[in-house]
Amino acid sequence: MTSILTSISSTKSFGGWIKRYQHHSSSLNCDMVFAIYLPPQAETRPVPLLWWLSGLTCTDENFMQKAGAQRMAAELGIAIICPDTSPRGLNLPGEHESYDFGSGAGFYLNATQAPWAEHYRMYDYLTRELPELVKAHFPLNGREAISGHSMGGHGALVLALRQPGRYASVSAFAPIANPSNCPWGQKAFSGYLGEDRSSWQQYDACALIASGASTQELFVDQGEADDFLATQLGADALQAACKQAGVPLLYRHHSGYDHGYFFIASFIDDHLHYHARHLKEAGQ
Amino acid sequence: MTSILTSISSTKSFGGWIKRYQHHSSSLNCDMVFAIYLPPQAETRPVPLLWWLSGLTCTDENFMQKAGAQRMAAELGIAIICPDTSPRGLNLPGEHESYDFGSGAGFYLNATQAPWAEHYRMYDYLTRELPELVKAHFPLNGREAISGHSMGGHGALVLALRQPGRYASVSAFAPIANPSNCPWGQKAFSGYLGEDRSSWQQYDACALIASGASTQELFVDQGEADDFLATQLGADALQAACKQAGVPLLYRHHSGYDHGYFFIASFIDDHLHYHARHLKEAGQ
Repeated sequence: MTSILTSISSTKSFGGWIKRYQHHSSSLNCDMVFAIYLPPQAETRPVPLLWWLSGLTCTDENFMQKAGAQRMAAELGIAIICPDTSPRGLNLPGEHESYDFGSGAGFYLNATQAPWAEHYRMYDYLTRELPELVKAHFPLNGREAISGHSMGGHGALVLALRQPGRYASVSAFAPIANPSNCPWGQKAFSGYLGEDRSSWQQYDACALIASGASTQELFVDQGEADDFLATQLGADALQAACKQAGVPLLYRHHSGYDHGYFFIASFIDDHLHYHARHLKEAGQ
Repeated sequence: MTSILTSISSTKSFGGWIKRYQHHSSSLNCDMVFAIYLPPQAETRPVPLLWWLSGLTCTDENFMQKAGAQRMAAELGIAIICPDTSPRGLNLPGEHESYDFGSGAGFYLNATQAPWAEHYRMYDYLTRELPELVKAHFPLNGREAISGHSMGGHGALVLALRQPGRYASVSAFAPIANPSNCPWGQKAFSGYLGEDRSSWQQYDACALIASGASTQELFVDQGEADDFLATQLGADALQAACKQAGVPLLYRHHSGYDHGYFFIASFIDDHLHYHARHLKEAGQ
């Protein structure tokens, strides 16, 4: 079963194309929009795909507009897909009341609590439905990598840790690495998963690492002037968990950089080079 | 007399800093905001300055967020200043009713018609007041270049043509090059300057070129899929005027590119290299 893609726009960028589509998601029971950047190489051969998961309040547009990733993606021949950050077009009770829960804040999990469980299934959407959809419609070679920012960094780490071997590489900018132990994560997990904290572990990167879920290397960039570093991100817990479990962690901290897109733009080329190297090795 | 600058934000980007300031403008009789990118080199020596003039509806933020210029500016050691596109904080009759007149649409001129003449003096603001202000506050070496997009491309061409010798180089993306002969320009000039078309010539790049105002080379990039190319931009008139007057025009047209920031981002590095070369020559 293949969903129908409705084209929203197609915009040339660095010799490739940023394409936005709407489609009906059966996982989420609503219509969704995503964007994909196809580098120039995609016109003549299948290319690898980098998943980019965005942070709180974002849509498919923020990364494409602000990260400046297309230049290097065009040079390296990597497609980039930017999904939305939650189901859309619904009107569940309280869904649009806060920036850190509900719309724009899906936290890349499968909710189990009413009324969220009927729609908030971003984990299934991103690991099964959307991959099948893009595989059917675009010239992709089947090799995937994943990255993301903040809530999307959490998503990238969790999706990689729970599917060892799927992604050639995984990286994150300022991820919410230990959501069970920070206000953003506790609010989201309580609402979507309920108060039984044992159900939270499958969506907590630090808990997954401690459980031995995967030993794949993790690449994380963190700004030292990030306003959320001390209270929300769990950077120390991530480093401790990796050390304890023997998971290789390439962790860089950058003096003066904050939590925003200017930080991402400053280092996105390093991430693209990192993923390109692993995607190439995965094909050999 | 030096205006006081109030810092709004300071954000690290590619080793340099994007700084936003508010100040009172005596030219415009209102408070204004601008942004300046200081590359890493500005910490140890004065650097040259590129003026970037934005298009309709923009503020100081669009270019900094979407053009991806900081990477190459940091490499080349060029500061970039992004002024706003009109006076702000006023409530003149009809000022906020349309996207192409009034707020966000100052057209880089000195208005002569009531009620605009009291405030809409962007030409004076950008050629005298703001240059003095930034010269007094930032480590700049006195060498300037200018560029812009759409309405801001018009502004860049007009400011350069009217001040020969001031800017080491001038470039534009999809400029409104012949505003006297397009709907955007006619609406703006009628409102700000009145119906006497002879007063329009001083703000029309094609008219200025025909009058022999300057023979400095102009560098223009234009997307062929630009929705405004046929009706608003006057690209043919610009090429004819330059040919007639013997003004060197480096004109490039790009298949598939539209009028937006993804077009600008795709070619901004070429413009930065162009300006860097001329700014360097100007210092020798």
